[in-house]
Amino acid sequence: MDEKKKPWGGRFKEATDGQVEEFTASIDIDRRLFHYDIRGSIAHCKMLARQGIMSGEEAAAVVTGLEEIRTEMDAGTFVYTADLEDIHMAVERALIDRVAEAGEKLHTARSRNDQVALDVRLYLRDEIDATRRLTENLKTVLLTRAKDEIDTMMPGYTHLQKAQPVLLSHYLLAYWEMFERDRQRLADCYTRTNVLPLGSAALAGTTLPIDRQYVAECLDFPVLSQNSMDAVSDRDFVVEFIFAASLLMMHMSRLCEDLVVWSTDEFGFIEMSDAFTTGSSIMPQKKNPDVAELIRGKTGRVYGNLVNMLTILKGLPMTYNRDLQEDKEPLFDTVDTVKNCLRILAGLLENITVNRARMAREAARGFSLATDIAEYLVMKNVPFRAAHDIVGRLVSYCIEEGKELPSLSLDEFKKFSDSFDRDIHDALTVQQAVNARSIIGGTSKEMVAKRIADIESETK
Amino acid sequence: MDEKKKPWGGRFKEATDGQVEEFTASIDIDRRLFHYDIRGSIAHCKMLARQGIMSGEEAAAVVTGLEEIRTEMDAGTFVYTADLEDIHMAVERALIDRVAEAGEKLHTARSRNDQVALDVRLYLRDEIDATRRLTENLKTVLLTRAKDEIDTMMPGYTHLQKAQPVLLSHYLLAYWEMFERDRQRLADCYTRTNVLPLGSAALAGTTLPIDRQYVAECLDFPVLSQNSMDAVSDRDFVVEFIFAASLLMMHMSRLCEDLVVWSTDEFGFIEMSDAFTTGSSIMPQKKNPDVAELIRGKTGRVYGNLVNMLTILKGLPMTYNRDLQEDKEPLFDTVDTVKNCLRILAGLLENITVNRARMAREAARGFSLATDIAEYLVMKNVPFRAAHDIVGRLVSYCIEEGKELPSLSLDEFKKFSDSFDRDIHDALTVQQAVNARSIIGGTSKEMVAKRIADIESETK
Amino acid sequence: MDEKKKPWGGRFKEATDGQVEEFTASIDIDRRLFHYDIRGSIAHCKMLARQGIMSGEEAAAVVTGLEEIRTEMDAGTFVYTADLEDIHMAVERALIDRVAEAGEKLHTARSRNDQVALDVRLYLRDEIDATRRLTENLKTVLLTRAKDEIDTMMPGYTHLQKAQPVLLSHYLLAYWEMFERDRQRLADCYTRTNVLPLGSAALAGTTLPIDRQYVAECLDFPVLSQNSMDAVSDRDFVVEFIFAASLLMMHMSRLCEDLVVWSTDEFGFIEMSDAFTTGSSIMPQKKNPDVAELIRGKTGRVYGNLVNMLTILKGLPMTYNRDLQEDKEPLFDTVDTVKNCLRILAGLLENITVNRARMAREAARGFSLATDIAEYLVMKNVPFRAAHDIVGRLVSYCIEEGKELPSLSLDEFKKFSDSFDRDIHDALTVQQAVNARSIIGGTSKEMVAKRIADIESETK
Amino acid sequence: MDEKKKPWGGRFKEATDGQVEEFTASIDIDRRLFHYDIRGSIAHCKMLARQGIMSGEEAAAVVTGLEEIRTEMDAGTFVYTADLEDIHMAVERALIDRVAEAGEKLHTARSRNDQVALDVRLYLRDEIDATRRLTENLKTVLLTRAKDEIDTMMPGYTHLQKAQPVLLSHYLLAYWEMFERDRQRLADCYTRTNVLPLGSAALAGTTLPIDRQYVAECLDFPVLSQNSMDAVSDRDFVVEFIFAASLLMMHMSRLCEDLVVWSTDEFGFIEMSDAFTTGSSIMPQKKNPDVAELIRGKTGRVYGNLVNMLTILKGLPMTYNRDLQEDKEPLFDTVDTVKNCLRILAGLLENITVNRARMAREAARGFSLATDIAEYLVMKNVPFRAAHDIVGRLVSYCIEEGKELPSLSLDEFKKFSDSFDRDIHDALTVQQAVNARSIIGGTSKEMVAKRIADIESETK
Repeated sequence: MDEKKKPWGGRFKEATDGQVEEFTASIDIDRRLFHYDIRGSIAHCKMLARQGIMSGEEAAAVVTGLEEIRTEMDAGTFVYTADLEDIHMAVERALIDRVAEAGEKLHTARSRNDQVALDVRLYLRDEIDATRRLTENLKTVLLTRAKDEIDTMMPGYTHLQKAQPVLLSHYLLAYWEMFERDRQRLADCYTRTNVLPLGSAALAGTTLPIDRQYVAECLDFPVLSQNSMDAVSDRDFVVEFIFAASLLMMHMSRLCEDLVVWSTDEFGFIEMSDAFTTGSSIMPQKKNPDVAELIRGKTGRVYGNLVNMLTILKGLPMTYNRDLQEDKEPLFDTVDTVKNCLRILAGLLENITVNRARMAREAARGFSLATDIAEYLVMKNVPFRAAHDIVGRLVSYCIEEGKELPSLSLDEFKKFSDSFDRDIHDALTVQQAVNARSIIGGTSKEMVAKRIADIESETK
Repeated sequence: MDEKKKPWGGRFKEATDGQVEEFTASIDIDRRLFHYDIRGSIAHCKMLARQGIMSGEEAAAVVTGLEEIRTEMDAGTFVYTADLEDIHMAVERALIDRVAEAGEKLHTARSRNDQVALDVRLYLRDEIDATRRLTENLKTVLLTRAKDEIDTMMPGYTHLQKAQPVLLSHYLLAYWEMFERDRQRLADCYTRTNVLPLGSAALAGTTLPIDRQYVAECLDFPVLSQNSMDAVSDRDFVVEFIFAASLLMMHMSRLCEDLVVWSTDEFGFIEMSDAFTTGSSIMPQKKNPDVAELIRGKTGRVYGNLVNMLTILKGLPMTYNRDLQEDKEPLFDTVDTVKNCLRILAGLLENITVNRARMAREAARGFSLATDIAEYLVMKNVPFRAAHDIVGRLVSYCIEEGKELPSLSLDEFKKFSDSFDRDIHDALTVQQAVNARSIIGGTSKEMVAKRIADIESETK
Repeated sequence: MDEKKKPWGGRFKEATDGQVEEFTASIDIDRRLFHYDIRGSIAHCKMLARQGIMSGEEAAAVVTGLEEIRTEMDAGTFVYTADLEDIHMAVERALIDRVAEAGEKLHTARSRNDQVALDVRLYLRDEIDATRRLTENLKTVLLTRAKDEIDTMMPGYTHLQKAQPVLLSHYLLAYWEMFERDRQRLADCYTRTNVLPLGSAALAGTTLPIDRQYVAECLDFPVLSQNSMDAVSDRDFVVEFIFAASLLMMHMSRLCEDLVVWSTDEFGFIEMSDAFTTGSSIMPQKKNPDVAELIRGKTGRVYGNLVNMLTILKGLPMTYNRDLQEDKEPLFDTVDTVKNCLRILAGLLENITVNRARMAREAARGFSLATDIAEYLVMKNVPFRAAHDIVGRLVSYCIEEGKELPSLSLDEFKKFSDSFDRDIHDALTVQQAVNARSIIGGTSKEMVAKRIADIESETK
Repeated sequence: MDEKKKPWGGRFKEATDGQVEEFTASIDIDRRLFHYDIRGSIAHCKMLARQGIMSGEEAAAVVTGLEEIRTEMDAGTFVYTADLEDIHMAVERALIDRVAEAGEKLHTARSRNDQVALDVRLYLRDEIDATRRLTENLKTVLLTRAKDEIDTMMPGYTHLQKAQPVLLSHYLLAYWEMFERDRQRLADCYTRTNVLPLGSAALAGTTLPIDRQYVAECLDFPVLSQNSMDAVSDRDFVVEFIFAASLLMMHMSRLCEDLVVWSTDEFGFIEMSDAFTTGSSIMPQKKNPDVAELIRGKTGRVYGNLVNMLTILKGLPMTYNRDLQEDKEPLFDTVDTVKNCLRILAGLLENITVNRARMAREAARGFSLATDIAEYLVMKNVPFRAAHDIVGRLVSYCIEEGKELPSLSLDEFKKFSDSFDRDIHDALTVQQAVNARSIIGGTSKEMVAKRIADIESETK
């Protein structure tokens, strides 16, 4: 085989233009797949031998050759030559250099179309696993911190306005729920990724007597793709992973937004450790929540990757088109970004100091017990809308008089409704407000502790 | 209660600005939810009575009132007044007008935050079902057409270049696989939508002794939300549905792209019925595949809706923020768009006439049997890369001589390789090329028929 | 002309499917264009008469008919019949009903392709103007408020951490600059929108002797499109407007984010008027910055519209394809959204009460004068990096000792550097910190006043 | 200065976490800016000396040091140490290593916030220029090819259906118009990029007596930013460039779509040179339009970059936030992608062989002269709608009889309308159909040649 010739060059008269070669090459990107490419090739080769398409000696030579190449690539000693388009060609060429004739048989009964689909599925299977583990880890950190903060009162916000007091642990567990859904979505996506495409060849399957089931067993795929045209043109699993990552990033961006707000001098609810903040090149006093900001910002790149893939796929005719080569960068970038963010956010959360006193003090401010008074009146048989209206006027009165609700006297309360009684003041503590919300999903210490216990028993 | 006053107006001194009222109102959009809103309110009301928070008589009056309102809304006789912000307020106000005091109790122990979350989940549950049914219907149409076309040969394409012959039924089943994955994604999304948020109140739960489990049973929810803060701020299920719809649209856009290309004078593979095409205002001869183009174009709006929701949620602090009100239009538009497209595409496919002769003729052109020759040589023990190269040169020879591969004589074949034998001409028919690809997922009639049978037995 | 027949129905044997008719119809959307459609038709008709393609009497009848239709549409008395695809057909059919033969001549030498391109350009020209005026108005409100707040000190933030004191007027003028860039972008987009496409017919121009220049003059277009194929397939101006609107929304979203944060109990910098806030259905004390949140949220829909249009156009073959019909909803929705937001935000800003005392107090906190000390040292010839380091240690000292920088004694300062002198305390007031930043673009009162004066003299 | 210490480390007690350091570092990305960073620093340094903030000797030493560093970076001999966050720190640290005290003065009166804004503006100014030149080059290629193809007839398409014949040169010039609009947008964006932000420091300007006007002159900026807060938080110019690039990519994607379709065996209009196509690893006969497909696919990544930046900026509080660090990758990737695509597409177009005979033959098919007959009737005073209907029936007749319009006899024509006359056959040639469209923007050879001449005279 002519060194300068493309493996597909048979019918071509003219060499590829240099710039075109560079433009169409993906080797700088897809070399990351070498492990999976070689693993897939070894399974394919064993199957070819088993089916008598290759001899046992040839197969042994090929496997040895591939393993050597893998070792060199792992060690960084493998020399990539610029004129090879992609990792699949680079591996195959290197193999042919080592075991000429047997190497030339490796690509029998497959095409780059099903080969690359296989490599990406093998890769993504591992990376979904890794992402899932990091999501689990973040959930564990949230749970641990929730246990630490089981007595910490904080103001709950809607519209960034103080609404009702909650436990900080309740807040943290809200994120536990979100990341649990993310984990489920990753699991669903894993199932749809875990399908063997090899054997689909270019688009139609092969005339050679291959055994796809055997390859699937070698590579731990529980399912075979059932349509060769679909198998080579399908990138649903890539988009679905990027979408799952987009929601992960979105959840992280919301948490980080809160952390940034809570780190302000004005809120003063938390302090991030020096190890997770950075300073300013001009302002010596600054301690910036850069890590939280970066995670929030990196949401954009994952969203962008999602739009990238969706755009590529829109209106693409069947089956494989070269546009699909562009799937790898958004996928790899998403994998890197979401894994890094999950890892760093877990570390950040572990290294936050909570200013419990300040949180508790603020939990009592801003008329955050107003709903409790309304519900108090409801229990005294005042219709809710009427109760709501009474408390609205009470709050106006407090603002005018510069008072807080708990400081009002019973007489003052009674001016607004006869239904108020001595026990009104019992309802007017943050602790009571929190612990009275003792329904499933509510913020009472009892319910939060129960949820923690349930989670822990489930994951045992 | 003052007619002009907002239900939340207790502490407000100044009326809402007219433009602001219009700007913040969502009634024109969310009135679509009235059925779900009333259904949720009835369940909530029954529970309040059961728990003694409302009397049995009050509850009965409320239920009757709500049913009347529903009847009027169904009939289109309900009068919406402009100053009501949203459907929830419209229903509640109408109820209070009918059954004053009891009506004022309905909103006890809930907030618009959990109420709207409930309504959207109830709505989406139904719409996911509807979308799923339409997806199933489209799959059935594909299957039926695949059975009709079990003997139709067509050129398979990669890069829109003829690659290898396939069965049209194989092509159609490739889409069956895609829409089957879509159906699975809808099912996964359904599971995560099917969770009761009511009882979360504004964000923290309620101090009143409600029974969430009972409400869940009334409304057929198998699961309760486990964290009130999460429950009121979560829109994952909305985004996840829009994403599932985005992939559905993407698949439809690909199919439509092919249909548009196949309808050209140049391809001439299919003709759409007059009922599914439109003409030109200036060119009397035109018969345009508008329906396919519109479906392809509408992919953009669903992608846009996805970006819309992801943007809204990015960096939003906990818990409910008014930004979330903007979830309804992209959701409703996505539901409408994807359902319409699924319905219309099924009809379009049913009304396409296939030009089988032309497809078959084209299947043989463009050296589409080249791979078969390479695999023929492989079976004669020529290494694949060498075989690939030989066939590449054969193709060049044909182009120069203006010949097609099947028309070459054995002598001509032998000029390129000694391994060619008499049986080479047996390999060189489209029928043989198709039927030799008889591996799982391959395009042979045997395998395609088996796939159809498997699908049919599974869905029985 | 048969009532039931499509205007393009000549070669069709079969009626359009009912669902298809509904699916392909755009009348509910594009009827908004009727004014522009009629205006364009009148100009076209006059030209046809002038060129002798229609008689003077015919033209007069057509113009009268069109004006009547416009009057009815304006008055809401026009009856739209469901089977008409779009506004262009609705107007033409109504015209033919009134002036049969002359009406049948109106569509001479044009196609819906160039007609709709014309209508959208006429419409958008007006709407860009309207958006520009609203942007100017918002800029004026910012300028007016900046003049009011020329003495208001506030903390300037980076990373939402207090950084250095600035004038509130300086902050407000930063937004003036952003909206000024938006205004420029709208002007650039206007120029590219202001081009006459009519005369391009379906895609190739017409064989009839039309006078495009005359039509351009009637409709105030300074420029004619120079290529008929481009003219009917170009939607650049639509996307460009949506992009300009996206940046407008982005700027508004940033301002609204700050307003939401500043409205918190914790920051307490501003209070929005009751007229621009809303309450809670469950929490009587709440006063939520809904308007600011909604504007922030609506950024998503404009971004979504941008992605929608970009997706539609990606990979579309030349020239007109029905996908392009989908341009109107994202365009109209963007126009409505951005105009509403500009209007409401201006009102919101006018109705904000600034808590000047609190802003000023906070401006002095958080070591916000640290940079001033470093620059003080630089003037005493300490290299900046060394000065930065010294002040960093000073801040640490303050944190440990619970002190603020201005309260340190000269002795304490001198412990960190000999370069400190008596005059150090002069540098340590917020007023001095602000006013010393008297370079172009800086926050000193002098520079801010100058900028206001410059703006006012430019806009006179 | 302690080697291990961050330049901003004064107040920090704890070292940055290793993973955090890596997470927040941007050096691998932003090192591409070194030329601009050093150029900006030299101008800043000269100004500091001119204003007496630094001595002349110090400035000279700094300039020499910076130039040495630039030489080393250019040569690839500069050693980047891992613990430096970004290119700005890397340059400054290297400078201080060379000229200690003077180096420590360089960062006087500036912050990384205005420094990075400067660097990106300097960089983008150059890259907009480069993109503009490549766009001009592509336009020139289109013009040259249009001149070559001034006599080539082709079918013009709407809905990918043959509509009316046009000149291939007219088609090519349609793209000239699109890329001309792109060029204008780049020019508009250049104007808004070409603004000096330096002197804005962290966000508020500086107390030191700097001369921004002098720096602007050194760096060829015609305009200074007028608000320091805006200057450090503004990334409009970045988003605007990515948007301009998005439209460029969109236009290229449309052209490439046509090229892919035209390269099919079925259309057969063009052949791409071997140098611009690639083959298949399994199908020896394949010659794939990979380059066109990749350009089409790469549209997705630029759209994705646009969404990335818009997402980052949405709802970001003032002023600088670390999220903004994420601006560089989407910007750099967009610059690289759009430049590569412009370059490659120009080469591809230059190396396409047009099958003129086939194009001409197809131009006559598909009843593409139907509109000409309708306009013929209009000139015989038949109202257009009636004429349209007559021709519609003529086309139906032809389909039934298996005839083409030009082959009908006068008697056959007369069966449909008395207005047909002997001269009807003169109207029924492709050449006549093209050349009769001789209005501004039309496809006649005369008008196309005039447009070419106008373009050439304008660009002289």
